[in-house]
Amino acid sequence: MAMNALGRHFLVELWEASNLDQPAVIEEALNEAVRVSGGTLLDIKIVPFPNGACSGIAIIAESHLSIHTWPEFGYAAVDMFTCNHDMDADAGFDVLRKYFSPGRIQVVEVKRGLTA
Amino acid sequence: MAMNALGRHFLVELWEASNLDQPAVIEEALNEAVRVSGGTLLDIKIVPFPNGACSGIAIIAESHLSIHTWPEFGYAAVDMFTCNHDMDADAGFDVLRKYFSPGRIQVVEVKRGLTA
Repeated sequence: MAMNALGRHFLVELWEASNLDQPAVIEEALNEAVRVSGGTLLDIKIVPFPNGACSGIAIIAESHLSIHTWPEFGYAAVDMFTCNHDMDADAGFDVLRKYFSPGRIQVVEVKRGLTA
Repeated sequence: MAMNALGRHFLVELWEASNLDQPAVIEEALNEAVRVSGGTLLDIKIVPFPNGACSGIAIIAESHLSIHTWPEFGYAAVDMFTCNHDMDADAGFDVLRKYFSPGRIQVVEVKRGLTA
């Protein structure tokens, strides 16, 4: 049985990470991750919260890239959702490593919209 | 062992769904889903694509709510990510049912940032 996914969704966990309270770094990281993975940026928004946490969302033609950070835990949840199977997700993960220096990184790929 | 998740992330699959090519309906649905689930809307963006597909992203103080639609498959991928454990996700799902009338709906909850 051939299974095709309409969307590829990567759930990325960053632990022991740095710069999670730096909106400017987060914006640069999202921009670069979109660019190197071959995405087309449509809009980007970074929201810093009073406690230092940040949310960042890049809307791309291929779906979205989001990050939510918990600086007090050194943790960030990143989601890369793409409907373009040619996007180079690994290149995007390398950008996350470069900007956030996680001691640990875990990636789960969820295939969304599986059609048999 | 007590496990606490920093974020609750609901991956919602809508099949046999309607209105997936209607940006105005999608925007209203996201707005209402945020409101009834108890979220605080910060920003919302709907992106229609030439083939009728739409992306919609609501940035909320509690994280985000996104939808990506494939009208030609009657399919939409919805993500509700929240760092507030008091949010009423079920109420949000009911809003999705109301606006998109899916023949099938599947929800998976992923606990993000588990700390033991």
